[in-house]
Amino acid sequence: MKRRLEIQLTPLDEAQRLFFDALEQAGFFIAPEESLPVREALGRVSNRAVHALRPVPHFRSTAMDGIAVRAEQTVSASEQMPVELREPDDFIYVDTGDFVPEPFDAVIMIERVRELESGRVQVTQPIASGKNVRPVGEDFQQGEVIIPADFRITPEAVGALLNGGASTMWIKREPRVIYFPTGSELVMAESELPPGKIPETNSQIVKGYLQQWGGRIEIGPLVPDDSMALQEAFKSALERFDMLLVGGGTSMGRGDLTAAVVSQLGRVIVHGVAYHPGHPVVLGLIEQKPVIGLPGYPVAAWFGLQLFVKPLLERYYRLSPAPASFIEGRLAEPIKSVRGAIEFIRVRLEPGADGWRVFRLPGGASRLSSLIRAHGILEIPEDVESLPAETPVRIRLLRMPS
Amino acid sequence: MKRRLEIQLTPLDEAQRLFFDALEQAGFFIAPEESLPVREALGRVSNRAVHALRPVPHFRSTAMDGIAVRAEQTVSASEQMPVELREPDDFIYVDTGDFVPEPFDAVIMIERVRELESGRVQVTQPIASGKNVRPVGEDFQQGEVIIPADFRITPEAVGALLNGGASTMWIKREPRVIYFPTGSELVMAESELPPGKIPETNSQIVKGYLQQWGGRIEIGPLVPDDSMALQEAFKSALERFDMLLVGGGTSMGRGDLTAAVVSQLGRVIVHGVAYHPGHPVVLGLIEQKPVIGLPGYPVAAWFGLQLFVKPLLERYYRLSPAPASFIEGRLAEPIKSVRGAIEFIRVRLEPGADGWRVFRLPGGASRLSSLIRAHGILEIPEDVESLPAETPVRIRLLRMPS
Repeated sequence: MKRRLEIQLTPLDEAQRLFFDALEQAGFFIAPEESLPVREALGRVSNRAVHALRPVPHFRSTAMDGIAVRAEQTVSASEQMPVELREPDDFIYVDTGDFVPEPFDAVIMIERVRELESGRVQVTQPIASGKNVRPVGEDFQQGEVIIPADFRITPEAVGALLNGGASTMWIKREPRVIYFPTGSELVMAESELPPGKIPETNSQIVKGYLQQWGGRIEIGPLVPDDSMALQEAFKSALERFDMLLVGGGTSMGRGDLTAAVVSQLGRVIVHGVAYHPGHPVVLGLIEQKPVIGLPGYPVAAWFGLQLFVKPLLERYYRLSPAPASFIEGRLAEPIKSVRGAIEFIRVRLEPGADGWRVFRLPGGASRLSSLIRAHGILEIPEDVESLPAETPVRIRLLRMPS
Repeated sequence: MKRRLEIQLTPLDEAQRLFFDALEQAGFFIAPEESLPVREALGRVSNRAVHALRPVPHFRSTAMDGIAVRAEQTVSASEQMPVELREPDDFIYVDTGDFVPEPFDAVIMIERVRELESGRVQVTQPIASGKNVRPVGEDFQQGEVIIPADFRITPEAVGALLNGGASTMWIKREPRVIYFPTGSELVMAESELPPGKIPETNSQIVKGYLQQWGGRIEIGPLVPDDSMALQEAFKSALERFDMLLVGGGTSMGRGDLTAAVVSQLGRVIVHGVAYHPGHPVVLGLIEQKPVIGLPGYPVAAWFGLQLFVKPLLERYYRLSPAPASFIEGRLAEPIKSVRGAIEFIRVRLEPGADGWRVFRLPGGASRLSSLIRAHGILEIPEDVESLPAETPVRIRLLRMPS
C-alpha cells in the first residue's frame, strides 16, 4: 500500500542549470520581437540596437550665456588693447542652448564681456575656435548607437531615443504566462470559508512578480485535484501561452498530480530541489514550453518565483540581474539549519551597539507573515547545520530596516 | 547693463533640509487617504495598519501527509507493542493542508504508519498533542496587524491581506503632480527641427520616474519664456495639482524666469544648490504647495529628480529609501572635480586583475549618453578637487556591469 515515494532532491544550482539548458535547447530564450512606439517602451527590453536618425544636438549651440563671435577676431585682444565688436556683424547675444550660426565659432561668457552701449562690446582676451560651443552630435552622432540590444528602457533612454529621432523601436515581446492554481481545497478569498477550504491568494503573488519581471500574466481558473482536469487545463493553455505555471500539487501526496501530468504531456526535468522552504518544485517542458510547478505553501511559492521564474525571465530578456543590496550583521541567537539543503531564513534586523543584530523570524513555508515582516533573507549553505550566536552574516535586503 | 547675478549655491544637504522643513510646516507630508480594493493596491502605500478580520489559517490543518489521531491513544505505542487504530473513529487520512477535525489533535507522518489493511493501521510510537498540526491563527491571529501603516504593498502583502479577509484598505492618495516644460526653443520631438529648436523630451524622464516613485504625473503644455505665460500656467495648475514641476528657466539667463515667477506667486526657499551636474535648481512653495524648478539640461534634470523629488515622495509616503547597491573599484584614471560643490560622476566599470576598474564617462549636464552608458555614479565630496588613479572608490550601481 505504498502511496508515495521520497523525491530525490536536486541541488539548486544544478536544477537551474538543467532546466535552463533544456529551455535553451527548446529555443525558449529566442524572444520574438515586436515594434512599439518609443513613448510606450518604458520598462520594456530592446531586441535590436537603436541608432540615432539625426545628430544630437542637431545644431551648434552655446554652452554658456554670452556672445557668439568669430574667434579669429579676438586674437589680438588684451586688457590693454581690447577688441571692439559690433552687433550683429561681429557678435550676437546668445543664451545657453541657443543656435550659434555661421560664421560665429566661439562663445565668450557674458561675465567676460565689457558692454559699452547697445550693440557695442569690448573683449579683453582671445578665445579659441569652438570654445563654449557644443558641437553637432556631441551627445549622439547620426547613426551612433543610442541604446544597445537587450537593454531595459529607462526614462532617460526614452528621452535620448526621442532626441535621436527614433519614434518606434523593436522590443522583445513579453512572454505570455498563465498560472493555474490547483487544489480542490481552494476557493476565492472573498467566498465563505468553511473549515478545510483555503483562500486562493498565491495567484496575487505570482501576478505581482510576473508583472514586475516582464511576463504578460493571466490567472487561469481554479483546477481541482484531478488528473484529467489538469491535463485539459494545460492543453487548452498551450495554444495561447508561452509558459505555464501551476500552483500546488507538486509534492507527493494523494492529490499531488503536477509532476505526473507534466510527464504525461511532456517531460519533467527536475522534481524536488534541495532548498528550504519549498523543495517540491516541478520543472519541465510541454511542447517545448516551460512548465513550472510551484509549491502550494505561499512562502515556498515565493522562493520558487525568485529562484526559477525571475532568472528565467532575465535569460529570456538577456538582462543581468538587477543589483542586489546586502547588509552585514551578527546573529542575535544561534540558528539551526537543515543539512543537505540550502535554507533561506527570513530575518529582522535591529540596531545594536556594534552594528545590526539579526533575528530569525518564526515560521515555515506557510507563514506569509515571515516574509512581510522580514528585512531580508539569510542564506545558509547546504553543508551548514548550525550557526552560533554572534556569527557575522550577510543579509540580502528586501527593505531597509528603519 | 548688468543682466545677471551669480546665484549663491546652497549645500545639498542644507537645501534638502530647508525645503523639506518648509514642506513639513506647510502640511504637505500629511497624505490624504483613499479606500482601495486590496486586489488593486499592489505598489501603493498603506495609510493605516490593516488587521486580520479572521485568523489565518482559520482552521486546524495538517502540516504533513499522514493520519490524524488523538494523541492520548498513542501514549503506550512502541515497536514491541504497537497500537492499532481504526478508520474513521481512531484516525483519518489527511494530506498537507487538510482540516484536522475534533477530536483529532495530532498528525502522524505517513512514513511512520504501518498500514495493515483498508481502514486499519498500527503506530509504533507516541505522538504529542498538537504535533504536525498547524494551529488556527498560526500566520495571523484574528485582529493581528497584517501590514502596518506606511507600508508599500508587495505581492505577498496582497496575498496575506486577502487571506486575512481584508478586501479594501486605506492607502495614501498619490500626489497629483504636473510638469511644465518651459523654453521658447522647445518643440515636440516628432516635429521638424530647425536649428535652434530643441526636442522636448525631459518630460519623458520626469514622467517615468514620477510613476515609479508614486506620483500621479501629468505633462502640461509647453510654456514659452514669458513671465505671464508661466504665471498663468502655475495659477491654472494650483487647483488640480498638489505639486508643480517646471523644467528649464532655472538659471539666470535672459529667459530664466522660474525663480522670479515663484517669488511673485509664492516664495523661493532655495535657488541654486552646490552640486554638479545641475546646480541651478529652484525649490519653493506656492500656496503651500511644493514647486521644483529642474534645470533644462537632461542630466541635470535627472539629478534634480533623484535628489529632490524622490526623497520628497519618500517623505510623503513615510517610506525608507529603497536599499541601494554599491560596488568597490579603483579609478582607472585620475579624476578632477569642482571644489565647493559635490560632483556626481557617471562611470563605467570594467573587470581588472584585482577588481573593478572605474572609468569616467565624458560629458556634462547635456549628454544623456553619459547616463545611459553608466554602470553607476561616483560621488565626489565638496572638498575634494582631484583623485589620483588607483584611488579605491565606492560606486552606486545603476545596473550590473556584465
